[in-house]
Amino acid sequence: MERIYATYLIETPLAVEQAAAMLAGEQSSGTFVAVPGETEELKQRCAARVEKISLLDSVSTPSLPGAKSASGKFQRAEVVVSWSVENMGYNLPTLVSTIQGNLYEITAFTGLKLMDVELPPSFANHFSGPKFGVAGTRKLTQVEGRPLIGTIIKPSIGMSPKQTAALVKVLAEAGIDFIKDDELMANPQHSPFDERVDAIMRVINDHADRTGKKVIYAFNVSDELDAMQRHYEKVVKSGGTCAMLSLNSVGLSGAKKICDLGALAIHGHRNGWGMLNRHPLLGIEFPAYQKLWRLAGVDQLHVNGIANKFWESDDSVVRSMEACAKPLCSGTGVPPVQLDDPKSFNASPVKNASLDRRDACPTTNCDAPILPVVSSGQWGGQACETFRRTKTVDLLYMAGGGIMAHPDGPAAGVRSLQKWWEAAVEGLTLEQAAAKYSELKKSVEKFGKIK
Amino acid sequence: MERIYATYLIETPLAVEQAAAMLAGEQSSGTFVAVPGETEELKQRCAARVEKISLLDSVSTPSLPGAKSASGKFQRAEVVVSWSVENMGYNLPTLVSTIQGNLYEITAFTGLKLMDVELPPSFANHFSGPKFGVAGTRKLTQVEGRPLIGTIIKPSIGMSPKQTAALVKVLAEAGIDFIKDDELMANPQHSPFDERVDAIMRVINDHADRTGKKVIYAFNVSDELDAMQRHYEKVVKSGGTCAMLSLNSVGLSGAKKICDLGALAIHGHRNGWGMLNRHPLLGIEFPAYQKLWRLAGVDQLHVNGIANKFWESDDSVVRSMEACAKPLCSGTGVPPVQLDDPKSFNASPVKNASLDRRDACPTTNCDAPILPVVSSGQWGGQACETFRRTKTVDLLYMAGGGIMAHPDGPAAGVRSLQKWWEAAVEGLTLEQAAAKYSELKKSVEKFGKIK
Repeated sequence: MERIYATYLIETPLAVEQAAAMLAGEQSSGTFVAVPGETEELKQRCAARVEKISLLDSVSTPSLPGAKSASGKFQRAEVVVSWSVENMGYNLPTLVSTIQGNLYEITAFTGLKLMDVELPPSFANHFSGPKFGVAGTRKLTQVEGRPLIGTIIKPSIGMSPKQTAALVKVLAEAGIDFIKDDELMANPQHSPFDERVDAIMRVINDHADRTGKKVIYAFNVSDELDAMQRHYEKVVKSGGTCAMLSLNSVGLSGAKKICDLGALAIHGHRNGWGMLNRHPLLGIEFPAYQKLWRLAGVDQLHVNGIANKFWESDDSVVRSMEACAKPLCSGTGVPPVQLDDPKSFNASPVKNASLDRRDACPTTNCDAPILPVVSSGQWGGQACETFRRTKTVDLLYMAGGGIMAHPDGPAAGVRSLQKWWEAAVEGLTLEQAAAKYSELKKSVEKFGKIK
Repeated sequence: MERIYATYLIETPLAVEQAAAMLAGEQSSGTFVAVPGETEELKQRCAARVEKISLLDSVSTPSLPGAKSASGKFQRAEVVVSWSVENMGYNLPTLVSTIQGNLYEITAFTGLKLMDVELPPSFANHFSGPKFGVAGTRKLTQVEGRPLIGTIIKPSIGMSPKQTAALVKVLAEAGIDFIKDDELMANPQHSPFDERVDAIMRVINDHADRTGKKVIYAFNVSDELDAMQRHYEKVVKSGGTCAMLSLNSVGLSGAKKICDLGALAIHGHRNGWGMLNRHPLLGIEFPAYQKLWRLAGVDQLHVNGIANKFWESDDSVVRSMEACAKPLCSGTGVPPVQLDDPKSFNASPVKNASLDRRDACPTTNCDAPILPVVSSGQWGGQACETFRRTKTVDLLYMAGGGIMAHPDGPAAGVRSLQKWWEAAVEGLTLEQAAAKYSELKKSVEKFGKIK
């Protein structure tokens, strides 16, 4: 029977072997005392297994409250645990309940983060995954060889459908590839969903008729399920190509239902992510997170961007972009633990620990990369560093103020972003690009700080 | 226009007024530079408002990484922010994206926890809330005047439908009111959902025919949406009365769709809760959390228990039970910040801060309490302290090992729990109860430590 492997970064007041055994027990056949029925045969078949433990450093102050240490020490470690696929079957919520679930509440841990999960090939065969992904989203826009350039309607909330459509017209004429609703804008009284779709799709369809280029607009369909389905159908009927979901707010089951409809590319907004990820020893890391949403069928997923306005480090952004490009079932084993600059937090550095490689899986059915959505405080200048570190143009590059507040207007804003990416692919740094292309100077003056 | 009020505990490297203004801006009309369209009229209508700031203590070490402080200080405060209902309408995922969303990623905060949310009366009118709740769940079991006594099928995973049904028979004959699947047990190969329902409902229906008492069995329907609906219908057709959802794994939209079906009481399991709550300055507190699931229509919600096996403090458990009993729209204002024993964590104590009371709402439509599910390491002895602190028997008291591993078998285990609650309501302490009732001594000897 195939197995699922999950890698955790843990911190424990106990011996690591004991803590790891409790983790495995709690998430398979355990309760707090031995009970009849927990036979050896059953344990053999259904018990989770501790596959590997790599000791890291220890600290004297726990990262999370709720547990005491007899030794005064809290040991950190990387732990790999596996389950038989039989335990949860092809059931995403139950997969999450198994590999995360109650674990964060256990006193055997003063820190626990799910770093990655390795899924067997049958998962990638069972779930159809992103219907559009990188290739499908490119096809919708007919953009090849460079990132898609996108923007967000701002202000986030308050504009009427007519005002929004007028802005979409400006942006479409400026040459934008992609526009999205803000995650705060769904179906409010001042911009009812259907009216907004009508107003915006009239502009987008007219523009497509005239120019042959159909701008993608990600309408925020997030709502309760019946409303999401109604909104989705409205977009389809109106000739739209994309729907946006606030993934954490909607949840896995609702999101999968919408993804399964299959007619629109699904833009996955991860607002709420900071709650799940910001603490270095609590929650989930992006390599695991993105796999869950890929299984659900999300096509595009936010990853922040280089020098973003949020807290996330460049290293973390780069790792996230790389995760999006890897096959769902990588066959390359569980990646080593990597924590960002732990010195800035009250924690000691965590060393890398290499892990065994596991069975490679056939790539044919696992090979559906999700399109990373680079956003948050992006204005173009970050293109150089983004390309230098990732060597890819398979991304959606989103700028809000970076386009709309460009000194020469939105069209100049879009052209500026395209030019920045040309310069980036040319291999130039921000400074070199600004020196070589006079049209980039204005955006540097407005938005950039050349260090 | 009615407004929604959210109370946050924050920690910031900035002046608190500035940080609070950024919070309000990010979650209404803000972007990182001023953009055309963000007019004064629009701001007036749709901008979030900072309603109140109460300074707490300051610390020199940030609780979360990702931000620096020019002053070296990180100031804590309680902040109340409000939004017009117009911004999100009656849309649960968008409510969550608004009051939580991107907030956790902002560098203006090195700590942010949503403590409570006050919803206007129209929310309680719009959402039908729990269809069963306390009164409806009692009616299903015909148990009045004492807590419902429940148990969880253990081992968590691995038993066949036949083995599970045999255990259900023992428990039903022992006089149990409620039994549930483990959250790890959904629809695995060794216990296909339909077969499990058939085997278990045969036992429960037979028992009901003989005795007039129908045991509630919460079948774990958690899965993707179509499968959940199939499972739900199977339970209804088989004469079952309850379905269980792993709320965090399924998500709000999927859970609401299932709750809306209306034929079964919905047992809400909150596995994953520790990730959202264990850090004192990250995530969400239970008073806010339970309101979201009540709006979705959940009838029963886990709250841990006194002296539980997890990390949660008794104070937090008591607060959670009290939150379940309050009307959805309390009209009693936002409760003060209460943090548990911050000394055990690397943080200074946070003082209570009183808040203004706001408009009272009519109780007729808001008055649907959710049934608190007390569980985790419970064996009966905790009944005394649970009742002493909460003065309620409106709860589902769950014991796993506490019943099945009772020295005289499961029937004695169930009788023991009932007796413990009689003693608790009598006002006895654990020690007094054990001294007075000889039949409680055995459970103390097996499970308890009289301090």
